[in-house]
Amino acid sequence: MQKNKSYLNCLQREQAQELWWHKLKECGFFKNPSVETVAVETSLGRVTAYSVYAKRSVPHYNGSAMDGIALCASDTFGAQETEPKRLKLLNAQQPFSSDCCYVVDTGDLMPAGTNAVVMVEDVYFIDGEAEIIAAAAPWQHVRIIGEDIVANELVLSEHRVIAPIDIAALLAAGIENIDVLCKPKAAIIPTGDEIVATCKELKPGVILDVNSHMLSAAVMEWGGEPVRTNIVKDDIHEIQRAIFASLQVNDMVIVNAGTSAGREDYTASVLAELGEVLVHGVAIKPGKPVVLAICQGKPVIGLPGYPVSAMLTAELFVRDILLARQKLAPLQADQIEAILVKQVASTLGVEEYVRVSVGNVQGKMVAAPLSRGAGLISSLAKAQGIIGVGQTHLGIAPGTTVPVTLLRKSHPTNTILAVGSHEFALELLGIFLRRHIENVDLSCANVGSMGGIMAIGNNEAHIAGVHLLDDVTGQYNITHLKKFLLNKEVKLVHFAMRQQGLMVLPSNPKDIKGLEDLARADITYINRQRGSGTRMLLDYELKKIKIHSSQICGYEKEVGTHMAVGASILAGAADTGLGVQAAAKALGLDFIPVSQEQYDLILNFDIADERMNIIIEILQSPEFRHEVEALGGYDLRDAGKLIEYR
Amino acid sequence: MQKNKSYLNCLQREQAQELWWHKLKECGFFKNPSVETVAVETSLGRVTAYSVYAKRSVPHYNGSAMDGIALCASDTFGAQETEPKRLKLLNAQQPFSSDCCYVVDTGDLMPAGTNAVVMVEDVYFIDGEAEIIAAAAPWQHVRIIGEDIVANELVLSEHRVIAPIDIAALLAAGIENIDVLCKPKAAIIPTGDEIVATCKELKPGVILDVNSHMLSAAVMEWGGEPVRTNIVKDDIHEIQRAIFASLQVNDMVIVNAGTSAGREDYTASVLAELGEVLVHGVAIKPGKPVVLAICQGKPVIGLPGYPVSAMLTAELFVRDILLARQKLAPLQADQIEAILVKQVASTLGVEEYVRVSVGNVQGKMVAAPLSRGAGLISSLAKAQGIIGVGQTHLGIAPGTTVPVTLLRKSHPTNTILAVGSHEFALELLGIFLRRHIENVDLSCANVGSMGGIMAIGNNEAHIAGVHLLDDVTGQYNITHLKKFLLNKEVKLVHFAMRQQGLMVLPSNPKDIKGLEDLARADITYINRQRGSGTRMLLDYELKKIKIHSSQICGYEKEVGTHMAVGASILAGAADTGLGVQAAAKALGLDFIPVSQEQYDLILNFDIADERMNIIIEILQSPEFRHEVEALGGYDLRDAGKLIEYR
Repeated sequence: MQKNKSYLNCLQREQAQELWWHKLKECGFFKNPSVETVAVETSLGRVTAYSVYAKRSVPHYNGSAMDGIALCASDTFGAQETEPKRLKLLNAQQPFSSDCCYVVDTGDLMPAGTNAVVMVEDVYFIDGEAEIIAAAAPWQHVRIIGEDIVANELVLSEHRVIAPIDIAALLAAGIENIDVLCKPKAAIIPTGDEIVATCKELKPGVILDVNSHMLSAAVMEWGGEPVRTNIVKDDIHEIQRAIFASLQVNDMVIVNAGTSAGREDYTASVLAELGEVLVHGVAIKPGKPVVLAICQGKPVIGLPGYPVSAMLTAELFVRDILLARQKLAPLQADQIEAILVKQVASTLGVEEYVRVSVGNVQGKMVAAPLSRGAGLISSLAKAQGIIGVGQTHLGIAPGTTVPVTLLRKSHPTNTILAVGSHEFALELLGIFLRRHIENVDLSCANVGSMGGIMAIGNNEAHIAGVHLLDDVTGQYNITHLKKFLLNKEVKLVHFAMRQQGLMVLPSNPKDIKGLEDLARADITYINRQRGSGTRMLLDYELKKIKIHSSQICGYEKEVGTHMAVGASILAGAADTGLGVQAAAKALGLDFIPVSQEQYDLILNFDIADERMNIIIEILQSPEFRHEVEALGGYDLRDAGKLIEYR
Repeated sequence: MQKNKSYLNCLQREQAQELWWHKLKECGFFKNPSVETVAVETSLGRVTAYSVYAKRSVPHYNGSAMDGIALCASDTFGAQETEPKRLKLLNAQQPFSSDCCYVVDTGDLMPAGTNAVVMVEDVYFIDGEAEIIAAAAPWQHVRIIGEDIVANELVLSEHRVIAPIDIAALLAAGIENIDVLCKPKAAIIPTGDEIVATCKELKPGVILDVNSHMLSAAVMEWGGEPVRTNIVKDDIHEIQRAIFASLQVNDMVIVNAGTSAGREDYTASVLAELGEVLVHGVAIKPGKPVVLAICQGKPVIGLPGYPVSAMLTAELFVRDILLARQKLAPLQADQIEAILVKQVASTLGVEEYVRVSVGNVQGKMVAAPLSRGAGLISSLAKAQGIIGVGQTHLGIAPGTTVPVTLLRKSHPTNTILAVGSHEFALELLGIFLRRHIENVDLSCANVGSMGGIMAIGNNEAHIAGVHLLDDVTGQYNITHLKKFLLNKEVKLVHFAMRQQGLMVLPSNPKDIKGLEDLARADITYINRQRGSGTRMLLDYELKKIKIHSSQICGYEKEVGTHMAVGASILAGAADTGLGVQAAAKALGLDFIPVSQEQYDLILNFDIADERMNIIIEILQSPEFRHEVEALGGYDLRDAGKLIEYR
């Protein structure tokens, strides 16, 4: 039997983090970070290395704080409305003598002999003299030297992030250059025989290096200086050489990947030779294959290869140590509470991170789980938040209120949740919406028409796209709405008539003419998921022509969208699949029409919600109709019409 | 009578902002911002100009999602623990035939003929064959083409800030360059005859240009590209030329200053000629002299000259329009609720912004107002938050709960509020504290010893520095503590013995020998504020030698710190003043000892608060003693000793 390598240890997330921080403190990673001197003007966002003291006082002279006249306060005693006092106006060259004054502007040096300013608004200039009707207090409206900052006083304490106002304070205090902490240098080493650097090298079985760019951006976002190396092959000596070289000139090293327990995963063994491996494997999902090591007194982190895993584990094990090295506090992501709308399963003993969409539906904040695969970059890019399922849980039941950690600076209360049948013109609706309402997001979850109706019923979505044919009445959607949503205040709005049909490779090499051909032994089909309108349409049409699902090769392989059906055909994984004409057009596939169907939207908003009216307006607009029809296979002549269903 | 120019109008803040946004929308400032193409790797933080669609599918081939064996699922039907199934291992060159399989790693292309993967953990390799004990479902552990992203699918919608994960998604989808919104270019024009660019040119009456650097940093922080021009003299034609030239190549122009109604304030009149002045004067304090104009369809903002005013008005009238131009949401600063500890006066009809320190004292969050002058850069740099006093208020009473807008990413719950007698070694204590506790801030408000005792009594401060002599017992601090804080659980800890004396210019030109000389007609004194220990000490000592305050010239001019006393002497505004030796030493002044006094700290923490013990430890440490004594005039041999006073 082949001996498979295994993980060194597999710690819980908290244990791993605790050990990691403990050892990094022990080896002095957070102590005495290097320092560089920069011009104050360019120091925005940098961290002061030491406390900074003023080199001069601000202001550096006694000056007028107002536009007005400078005088000696004792000359004005007794002045009042009934007994005004007149002072002779001197020019700047004339020396002061009593009962005289000078015109001064804000910031002007107080002429010798004067010790108070009267505001111009309170002065009457008559016959070359200044008349005042109230006594001036000594030093009134005078900014005395050092009033703001006194020489040698503390201006900024050590380890402080320099803000725009600090730049003003430093420059005013005579400081032109400042010692700041260097940005920690983090090497990022992409490894793997299957990894290539450019699209040109891409072929089946080969993967583009996107992680090293993503991790570089993350390191930059966290205040570090990323240093990306070339891709290193899965060769134990090459990996060792690369890590060793990077350790000499960087403050930390990130290796990506080779961290798993597979045949060619060398990261852990290399690090064990170069230093001490503290952790290999963490009980989290995604992200289990993490290696945490200290080599030559510096942290070396092996991150898993899937982009989502790499990103999540970088946030857990790289981000805050990078910040702490810069004397910055750990990042506190915004959290909100939301009601989970769908069950989330998880494994006992493993902490799972689930990407979610978040939105406020009828006054309650809801979180809808997105796809969970570690390979799904798009699901993390589209997510608005993440929920963690603790290792002591077997999952979370729907209806549970959970804390959601928000990604980005999103505005979950502005998000419109669209749940239901996949319709990629819905994304166009999202783009049009953003042009009407600032900072609105349209988040689409493709769960099929029935899933959409259920989500609306539970107030878990704002919009559901549905195309459900009642084979008795021949009508779309009304029957199901009456059955499932009769007691709910929702609106049914027509979206489009759309053409469904079979997608095939260009020139239709297998000469497929219609659904009858699906029973052919040489045809592999790719199906849509249960509950989707397209699946129902297929089953309905198959019934008519008396083909049973068991006769169709590939009937059991499901994908979630029209585009995924098309992509499977393009890839040769299937010969054909049912979908909308627009998907075939977008992918350059041939299309055999099967039937036209009605696709409507259920809108679940408060009556007062302006977003509902904006959506209807957009649907009715010629611009929107034009853009959607250009996708192919759509007819929007009645888009935006309300459908009476009660 | 001289005719003074006045403000064009003086709007309320909301009116001014509403008009400003309305007119900017009208002139299309937020529409069609310019676009540039950048490499995706360098696009972190940029805003997408358009929606971005995938150029290829991800994954772009059907690949194994696991390390294991690739096989045809139908070959495994019936396999179970009691009836294992053996498959022949093929190498990559051999074509597939039934009952065979290939070893694959994660990401490997699925060999032709296979449609499922069994994980390596579930395979036994025996005699060149693979044994499995369970059937595989078709397509299990296979990542099919387009599973993540399908070609032509939306990857990022328009006007989205690009995050690290988006860079991964874009690159994976075959996008190498991306159109992003250009950073809005904002010209910053410093104006004023009295403004100089470098410290070297600095002399009395002349002010260093710090604002243009501060505003550049602010523009950068808000995503813009600042373009600083040279300083322009107060000449109407030069200002006009500069603004006109900047308008040609920038998206907006910021003029600083010349916005007031003084003799040489030309900004408003120049802008009225170049375009339309919408607002001149806003009822806010600081910051009244703001000019908002639209010239050649672009916003031109005249900001007031005082740095604090310039910064606050830039936040009100520049920040969010700059963000909106980039399709970003207005900045939502963090707000907390805190109890105001001191009355804040304000003018009816004017919205006032008051800088505050914020800290959690004995479980309640308190906000302590700082100095309010528009010229006090340091007070804004030191503030942790700002409270606004609405225009319909005459002020806010102490004890009122107010919303505090937090500046920076501060941690108000970690702030230690020190209120009481000014002692600049306290700042050293703050620096030492930060070395022991991460992200702790020590905020010092100098309100005199009695003010400190009152603040402790009201739970408005953690620490009060006091030096209050009881002229009957000859003891420091104990009498006052017993009188005012007997029922409070506080600790009195000795800080230092310190030397008080008269500061005079080097070589003591007026030959001052002691307090007796203060009555001399040729001596001007600079005093400390009422309630300060130093003021009390002066009054006590004057009483002993029978000098009345009216005999002392300058007795009525008060400043708030020892350093400010020294600075006034250095500036020639006074001949002498009472203060600690350390201040004289720091400023290079001569020092005539008057008396040694005892300076103690009252500590107001929960028993369980670790910060109290850390403070006592620091006070007792040789490092701290050494650093403080090096300031001059301190004796810390008993520092950190608890003083029993009950």
